[in-house]
Amino acid sequence: MAIVGATGLVGRTMLKVLNEKHVPLDSLALFASDRSAGTEIEFRGETLTVQTLNEHSFDAIDIALFSAGGVLSRAFAPIAVKAGCTVIDNSSAFRMEPDVPLVVPEVNPHDAMNHHGIIANPNCSTIQLVLALEPIRKIFGLRRLIVSTYQSVSGAGQKGIDQLTSELQGIEPSQRISPHPLAFNTVFHGRPSDQQGASTEEEIKMRREIRRIMSMPQLPIAVTCVRIPTTGGHAESVYVELERDWTIPDIHACLADYPGLHIIDDAQQDAYPTPVSAFEKDDVFIGRIRQDEDYPRGLMMWVVADNLRKGAATNAVQIAELLMQKKS
Amino acid sequence: MAIVGATGLVGRTMLKVLNEKHVPLDSLALFASDRSAGTEIEFRGETLTVQTLNEHSFDAIDIALFSAGGVLSRAFAPIAVKAGCTVIDNSSAFRMEPDVPLVVPEVNPHDAMNHHGIIANPNCSTIQLVLALEPIRKIFGLRRLIVSTYQSVSGAGQKGIDQLTSELQGIEPSQRISPHPLAFNTVFHGRPSDQQGASTEEEIKMRREIRRIMSMPQLPIAVTCVRIPTTGGHAESVYVELERDWTIPDIHACLADYPGLHIIDDAQQDAYPTPVSAFEKDDVFIGRIRQDEDYPRGLMMWVVADNLRKGAATNAVQIAELLMQKKS
Repeated sequence: MAIVGATGLVGRTMLKVLNEKHVPLDSLALFASDRSAGTEIEFRGETLTVQTLNEHSFDAIDIALFSAGGVLSRAFAPIAVKAGCTVIDNSSAFRMEPDVPLVVPEVNPHDAMNHHGIIANPNCSTIQLVLALEPIRKIFGLRRLIVSTYQSVSGAGQKGIDQLTSELQGIEPSQRISPHPLAFNTVFHGRPSDQQGASTEEEIKMRREIRRIMSMPQLPIAVTCVRIPTTGGHAESVYVELERDWTIPDIHACLADYPGLHIIDDAQQDAYPTPVSAFEKDDVFIGRIRQDEDYPRGLMMWVVADNLRKGAATNAVQIAELLMQKKS
Repeated sequence: MAIVGATGLVGRTMLKVLNEKHVPLDSLALFASDRSAGTEIEFRGETLTVQTLNEHSFDAIDIALFSAGGVLSRAFAPIAVKAGCTVIDNSSAFRMEPDVPLVVPEVNPHDAMNHHGIIANPNCSTIQLVLALEPIRKIFGLRRLIVSTYQSVSGAGQKGIDQLTSELQGIEPSQRISPHPLAFNTVFHGRPSDQQGASTEEEIKMRREIRRIMSMPQLPIAVTCVRIPTTGGHAESVYVELERDWTIPDIHACLADYPGLHIIDDAQQDAYPTPVSAFEKDDVFIGRIRQDEDYPRGLMMWVVADNLRKGAATNAVQIAELLMQKKS
């Protein structure tokens, strides 16, 4: 196996997750940009040296987890595929390509089996949401989705954390992900097109990816994506109208035993999921499950996950495990 | 005039706003709890001493701005009214009482004229939202509202700011507004009832107050109220379905010249309102005005205001100005 982008936030989390999940590996090669090459990283008692990529990097690799940005994925994923390696790509480079499956293992594992060398890992905000929606969809159907996100600045990588941390310490950040301050503030993602009333890239991604993963190309989805001064995980305020009648105990029942989900919803104990409590966990957490008083088919819930774990590294490693199961 | 709760966050903001707006005052009496009595506060070159309340505190007062919590309002507002004083109450004590008008001066100023001694100042999250919705309602009608809030911890007073600040400095907070950490986190407001699937008090308040102020007792409203680690103001992700067809320029046009509103919405310049940019401003700021691609009558927008200003002190002072205009 190989990790491309091993020194980044997601790459380092991939290493942790591979280790915690005791994923069996014959070998592990680590790659990164020229700047990070030579970095030494401990893994399972060995010291691995991060290498730069070249045309032969993937000659002896079965699976490569890419998380080094879209430009690098576009350049090296085809080289890896040609060498017989399967690429699990965390960038948005291939997510909407028809012959590249976009996979959340608890939702559409079958799609992973129909790959042509590349499998795309969805956007962090997408993954936790489709996982929370899938068990509900199966039983009650989805009619309409309205979501507002509360996203960690770590979604923009180490840069985001650095800007927030510097600002909180009263230091001018050396690099920034937004011209607005992050500390004590809310900001939106990457600049949308110059069209008045346009959505941001993150909002467009979520809408497209949810539809694709859930095989619901017509599902009405309205999304507002917001970054807030958190680092532990993404939270989402979800409003979803279901096709059929439901009750609160129905929803609890259908979510309770679903793999990868964890309900925390006890008002009397102030129990609900938070970005801090989800930090470094692999599950998606759901709380504040409520019914719209005016539209009884309208369901509200609060969905939280560590965006570097289930939103990125954990999901990619789970896809790798699917491929390894198929082989064995 | 008098301010009850003059040493609190809102009380101190009331003093600032009275001064900035050059509100003509014959005299100003400051009251607070026993604990804060004796505190000296500078106002227009004079040193005012904060007094404790007693049965005769309001004998020579025309208008009293109360912001010292519901318990104190319930105890002393009737005494003030009996003394001939008009009370503008920032607590939630009287907001739903039929003979107490609930007023946002840009929305329902006429209601302020029908008071019986007490006028209620709405909840902070309510004020900014109804002000943003009112010009749209007038022209296009409202059919349905779905809101998720991003609220400053200052909504819980100095305690909230203290908990967040202590946590960010790595100090154990001496007082807390939530059993969960506020730093790098999201929390919900006061514990709801023990009923499964219940809304929090803040969510219930918003729903009831919006309907009352806008005289739309049947308007479907689904609200999720969230506190995030900000101190400058509240932000709201608003989804509203209108009764009639509209375009983005229509909405810009109807909001642009409305009193108290300010549009900041230029994607190419990363221009949108934020809690930091709204801090210490009196206006309500609106940005990210978008149309739902699937339901063209669905409007999305981002509404931000300083919750201590327009969300509390400024709105109360504006109500006082309405009363003073009526008198003169």
